[in-house]
Amino acid sequence: MTAVSTPSRIDPPRRILMGPGPSEIPSQILAALAAPTVGHLDPYFLKIMDEMQTMLRSVFMTHNQLTLAVSGTGSAGMETCVVNLIEPGDKMLVCVNGVFGGRMADVAGRVGAEVTTIERPFGEVFSPEEIEAAIKKSRPEVVGIVHAETSTGAWQPIEEISKIVHAHGALLLVDCVTSLGGVPVLIDDWEIDAAYSGTQKCLSCPPGLSPVTFSPRAIDVIDRRKTKVSSWYLDMNLVKNYWGSDRTYHHTAPINMNYALHEALRLALVEGLPARHDRHLRNHLALKAGVKAMGLDYSVKEPHQLPMLNSVTIPAGVDDAAVRKQLLNQFGIEIGGGLGPLKGKTWRIGLMGEASSERNVLLFLAALERCLLDQNFKVSPGAGVAAANGQYRG
Amino acid sequence: MTAVSTPSRIDPPRRILMGPGPSEIPSQILAALAAPTVGHLDPYFLKIMDEMQTMLRSVFMTHNQLTLAVSGTGSAGMETCVVNLIEPGDKMLVCVNGVFGGRMADVAGRVGAEVTTIERPFGEVFSPEEIEAAIKKSRPEVVGIVHAETSTGAWQPIEEISKIVHAHGALLLVDCVTSLGGVPVLIDDWEIDAAYSGTQKCLSCPPGLSPVTFSPRAIDVIDRRKTKVSSWYLDMNLVKNYWGSDRTYHHTAPINMNYALHEALRLALVEGLPARHDRHLRNHLALKAGVKAMGLDYSVKEPHQLPMLNSVTIPAGVDDAAVRKQLLNQFGIEIGGGLGPLKGKTWRIGLMGEASSERNVLLFLAALERCLLDQNFKVSPGAGVAAANGQYRG
Repeated sequence: MTAVSTPSRIDPPRRILMGPGPSEIPSQILAALAAPTVGHLDPYFLKIMDEMQTMLRSVFMTHNQLTLAVSGTGSAGMETCVVNLIEPGDKMLVCVNGVFGGRMADVAGRVGAEVTTIERPFGEVFSPEEIEAAIKKSRPEVVGIVHAETSTGAWQPIEEISKIVHAHGALLLVDCVTSLGGVPVLIDDWEIDAAYSGTQKCLSCPPGLSPVTFSPRAIDVIDRRKTKVSSWYLDMNLVKNYWGSDRTYHHTAPINMNYALHEALRLALVEGLPARHDRHLRNHLALKAGVKAMGLDYSVKEPHQLPMLNSVTIPAGVDDAAVRKQLLNQFGIEIGGGLGPLKGKTWRIGLMGEASSERNVLLFLAALERCLLDQNFKVSPGAGVAAANGQYRG
Repeated sequence: MTAVSTPSRIDPPRRILMGPGPSEIPSQILAALAAPTVGHLDPYFLKIMDEMQTMLRSVFMTHNQLTLAVSGTGSAGMETCVVNLIEPGDKMLVCVNGVFGGRMADVAGRVGAEVTTIERPFGEVFSPEEIEAAIKKSRPEVVGIVHAETSTGAWQPIEEISKIVHAHGALLLVDCVTSLGGVPVLIDDWEIDAAYSGTQKCLSCPPGLSPVTFSPRAIDVIDRRKTKVSSWYLDMNLVKNYWGSDRTYHHTAPINMNYALHEALRLALVEGLPARHDRHLRNHLALKAGVKAMGLDYSVKEPHQLPMLNSVTIPAGVDDAAVRKQLLNQFGIEIGGGLGPLKGKTWRIGLMGEASSERNVLLFLAALERCLLDQNFKVSPGAGVAAANGQYRG
């Protein structure tokens, strides 16, 4: 309003994105993002949507018809799943062992769910037994849990829990934001009823869309709702008619973001999911070998360490913010700090999608060594890189 | 899931986007969209967010502190405004003269508003008097109205209505999706309390974000809420802490879409708003001269014809779908069909942002002549182009 000089053009620094997401974006995906925009009802775009649905089913390992990309980020995907499954007064059990479980409980409460939470300290996972006990107590219609807690790096096993949830007649909602594309997410085999993910983690696409999938059981619940979904924008009854054969206009889809996700899914399938998961694991093991050789340790116990999100305990006497700032300013490397009770206590080192590479592991270990030395933390010189190379060479 | 061949890379046809949006995207904006992704808390991105807020205030002609881009399309912006201002049981009056007024009423009802609507036939606008009468009857807390009805091409005057709304102690919520960047939108002068727009209309940015702005009065209402906003994703109490000086993490912003909007706003301000509005008007007048010379007419009466969205009545005997298909397949030109009661009765010809150009007006008139001749509709050869050129030459 007031006369100001017009800002300069976008000219971002070239970062190496090793935080909790966004991750590095392959050039093919940025190129797809910048392809010429077409209309949201253009025959070409409708074909792209069909292909995306097919590819999303492949990546989610599901036959679910209702599988599509919500026009918002992962948190919009979370909200989509919750608000479509929950009616006011419904009971929902949410398993909270990090920020995103807590967020799910908040989202559910806002639309009138009677929310019960069970909690685990940040960095731990839930056992099937404790979830069964909680289900017996609160008798929920929906159980929500996070597969890969981005805030802690904890990897929650899902399969046994799913059996228990279904034995008690509830639906299982799973946050797969950080897991999809990095570790197996078997929607059909594990009988997950609703799941959401994000584009900017192991799919290595810019943030902006959220893949979601709903089982026939979940659709049946949505179809039998007595109340309208609280959100018009995220109402699957409306959205599915645009993605389905009706092609009824709902909202203007984010065309170019869908181009980018299309290319991201394509690249994931060209690599092959097993190969992609192996790559995430291999780089995680090398990073871990290096980190341990430098005298640091993971804040999540084995076997629950996520390969794509490595939570490392910050050693006593080392300044969290100073190290992250040095990594960013001197080496252009972004890593994440801790969230909630882990703030100042852990670093979150992402090896997601394109960022999960030998190159990044070696550079990061070399750069971290420098930062730790500058903090007067005693590191055996070269030990991190040597251990990682040893791990790679097998 | 089943073995399918991987789709080809994104390779869209090159369209001339003269529909109701998305509009054509300048190459500088596509380039910004594809700039290297950085993290959502990267110092560079925080600077970009600050610059965007400043530029959004300039484009909205407001000093409103709470002015930012919601991480969803225009409909998410609508939902943001409604769900933040409305608590269950609040009374809202919605003025419905097209699809988007109807949508606003739907959104408000879902979050528990007691919604009253007043209606006008598609293509007409509301008078201050009828709105005052409706306000006196229903005593609403919020009045919602559409500045530029994308579904009809009607241009609703706002200023007088705003005075009436405020005289009765209500807040004014205005849909500026299609107007912003194409005709004056004077948030402060007109005392609009909440407004939302889209990126893919007269700002000529791909779809995916929604600029919103809230007046101090509106913020006061939000601050005094007794209930949580129904949507976590769109809760301004949370979102504003990320866009504000706190920088509290809320959700991962769509980084690259924000780059694109940054460049779109920059280009709009470099052109200058008055020049940009003049350009939209000039091309509208030329198009109208051409369309009339071909024997067609507008379905909205003067002076309520939107310059950026020209609703033209389809002449008797001319096949709506066939003409639009021919325009698309033979000339790569997208225009929109009618919505709701105007389906099959009007064409919606967009001259939005970059698409508002002499080149597009002349090409469209020439191509439409061809289509009409192929439909055996009697057109005086060359009359449309001649009239448009005459209009341009003054």
